[in-house]
Amino acid sequence: MPDSDIDLLLTGDELMSGDTVDSNSAMIAQALMLSGQKIAQKVTLGDERKRLMAALSESTQRASVLIMNGGLGPTQDDLTAELIAAAAGVPLVLHPDAEQHVRRWCGERSIEPNDANLKQAWLPEGAELIDNPVGSAVGFALDIAGTLVLTTPGVPSELRAMLPAVCARVTHKLGGGELYRLRLQTFGIGESTAQALIDDDKTHWPDDVVLGFRAGMPQLEIKLTASADTPDVQRCRQTLERLFGDHILGEDDTTLAGAVQAVLRNQGKKLVTAESCTGGLIASMMTAEAGASSVFEAGFVTYANDIKQSVLGVSEATLETDGAVSEAVVVQMLRGALQRSHADIGIAVSGIAGPGGGTDDKPVGTVWLAWGSADDLHTWHTVLPTDRRMFQQLVAAAGLDLVRRQLLGLPRLPHYFSRRAI
Amino acid sequence: MPDSDIDLLLTGDELMSGDTVDSNSAMIAQALMLSGQKIAQKVTLGDERKRLMAALSESTQRASVLIMNGGLGPTQDDLTAELIAAAAGVPLVLHPDAEQHVRRWCGERSIEPNDANLKQAWLPEGAELIDNPVGSAVGFALDIAGTLVLTTPGVPSELRAMLPAVCARVTHKLGGGELYRLRLQTFGIGESTAQALIDDDKTHWPDDVVLGFRAGMPQLEIKLTASADTPDVQRCRQTLERLFGDHILGEDDTTLAGAVQAVLRNQGKKLVTAESCTGGLIASMMTAEAGASSVFEAGFVTYANDIKQSVLGVSEATLETDGAVSEAVVVQMLRGALQRSHADIGIAVSGIAGPGGGTDDKPVGTVWLAWGSADDLHTWHTVLPTDRRMFQQLVAAAGLDLVRRQLLGLPRLPHYFSRRAI
Repeated sequence: MPDSDIDLLLTGDELMSGDTVDSNSAMIAQALMLSGQKIAQKVTLGDERKRLMAALSESTQRASVLIMNGGLGPTQDDLTAELIAAAAGVPLVLHPDAEQHVRRWCGERSIEPNDANLKQAWLPEGAELIDNPVGSAVGFALDIAGTLVLTTPGVPSELRAMLPAVCARVTHKLGGGELYRLRLQTFGIGESTAQALIDDDKTHWPDDVVLGFRAGMPQLEIKLTASADTPDVQRCRQTLERLFGDHILGEDDTTLAGAVQAVLRNQGKKLVTAESCTGGLIASMMTAEAGASSVFEAGFVTYANDIKQSVLGVSEATLETDGAVSEAVVVQMLRGALQRSHADIGIAVSGIAGPGGGTDDKPVGTVWLAWGSADDLHTWHTVLPTDRRMFQQLVAAAGLDLVRRQLLGLPRLPHYFSRRAI
Repeated sequence: MPDSDIDLLLTGDELMSGDTVDSNSAMIAQALMLSGQKIAQKVTLGDERKRLMAALSESTQRASVLIMNGGLGPTQDDLTAELIAAAAGVPLVLHPDAEQHVRRWCGERSIEPNDANLKQAWLPEGAELIDNPVGSAVGFALDIAGTLVLTTPGVPSELRAMLPAVCARVTHKLGGGELYRLRLQTFGIGESTAQALIDDDKTHWPDDVVLGFRAGMPQLEIKLTASADTPDVQRCRQTLERLFGDHILGEDDTTLAGAVQAVLRNQGKKLVTAESCTGGLIASMMTAEAGASSVFEAGFVTYANDIKQSVLGVSEATLETDGAVSEAVVVQMLRGALQRSHADIGIAVSGIAGPGGGTDDKPVGTVWLAWGSADDLHTWHTVLPTDRRMFQQLVAAAGLDLVRRQLLGLPRLPHYFSRRAI
């Protein structure tokens, strides 16, 4: 008698050689989590008949649900349907609905279906089809001795499109249903600090409320999951909002640049950037978000000193006396950028990203930032000795957060780059 | 008697919940591949004593080598040492070298080692230490009934630092040794086209030469692996260079921007960018590479029409008659950027990244590019209907390749965005 476990079996030579990083299993796990389900064991194998058969046999003896990922395609390496038929002791048959799916998919692309295409319609006898809205390979469900076996494609976009149907079948088998989930995006707080804030708080967390973190770069996501949206759960949400306060950027997939865009839009303001060491990264982050044109008009990447002079009007004398990485220069860069645009607020950065260019006075990692408007201008500097790309990303993120806090009338963080803060 | 297989056992609740995408196993697989070794089976489990014990017991019966990843840290969840000791039937003992490592690590951070820190020095009796040059948790090696068990930390930077020692132990056990490997970075050619070029070529590929691809965004890596560097292998290398010709950007980790930097540096030239729809991404790609300051001085992000006028001198009349996304405007953007810098060559782009802003005449995805110098100026346009970020990335990559080809006197590609080309 199998217990109520979910096994995941992934197949693909590219997963064993290290050529592909497996993001599918995280996608499946997150979708199941939202249905209140959890994967117990994950096995990954190459496209090898003998090992796959052994793993299938083990899982169908042990688990209530086995989700397979990969091996549904048209080539000879794609063994999933054949092996599941063998494990169930049934033949492969041409499934009429699957055949229709393949013929329609080929027809939409003006392709005459060949044997390889049609191979994808040969499924184990008795299998129920799981529709693939975006690809030619359908998935299927089959009961093998009490274990529900579900197959899914290895192509991430196809997997994503099929997951709701897969999760519905798992929920139907194991019970449970859609959960309440809140995802808060925060900036400027690290995972251990976040945990300590929650631990030190006296709030009672109901047993069915699960808190989790996901550390991204540069954000930290705080997740709250519960079986249903109750007044108790809303009190937990309020606690999180109280504890994390102005670190909270927004919900779901809100990014730092998206949060800055939203504040600018609310206030009817526009941003200008003047970048040296970040080389256009701040502008690029701002314009990666749809809707940038209403809040962002111009960015200046003034990498060389004479460009700082000719394009932004930084004074040659200041560059000589203070150096390019200095408070006076970022202030002049900011003033120049504000004057040359219609922007209400600006951010200017100059620093030494490395690996070369450091001195005893100004080691690699030194950075000056200026932000604000012509009559409300602020500066800050720090030293962040890390590799070039990390330096650029952290400086750009801190710059955007400084702008966000300025717009919202919040104080800047006391530490942006310390281990605790990021 | 175990056969000569390598098993990988990963542990961590975060790998089962989908909160973390596992990139460690790909890193381990690639390192082993370079030693001529391959992983046969990969099992991933949460931090659960019973399941981990069962998996350990299975692997030590079946495999010659078991690499464990994760569970070496200071917390109660970190079970690896304890479980391996149990599987080997030996006690945990305070390992003097491991204790010294932990005390030194804490000392460098002015921390007094506590019980949690020192827990990491309790290893199975008889274990040999694998040094961790960057973290507090050492790895170790232990023979369990003929299976070599190797433990590695879950933190990617620590794992990376320990992999050479781990691979050396695997090679010592299984034989083999360092392979010859060539990695060519290419742009503008897709995986299926690359495969077809190789298949159609009459070159004989020796049996011990393995070819592989890794599709990045936007590059395609072509990998050649052989047991040793022989004249035969060098002939294969020449074949690849002949087949992929000017698509080849360079070896190892060369990026498109890095290749452009190298050509600029060789020719003593500088680049300027004038970006609308890519919003600073091209400048950001150029400056992400160390050494940018000698070949890149300035970038203009002219997102709004009046900024195109005031900053780059684009004519109001042209903007009105032709629109911002037009050949005439990108030419004027390019001329303006060249005049306002000391650059020898420039790239200008204007397009509709979407999701809004499209018209019947100029749908979302329309883009115009201009590149070259004042007296040798070229333009091109296309329509690339995809999502905003992909659009920006593909346009930026194509822009950099157009610059590279111009500098090298090569023709531009006939197709940059078709499915075959990218």
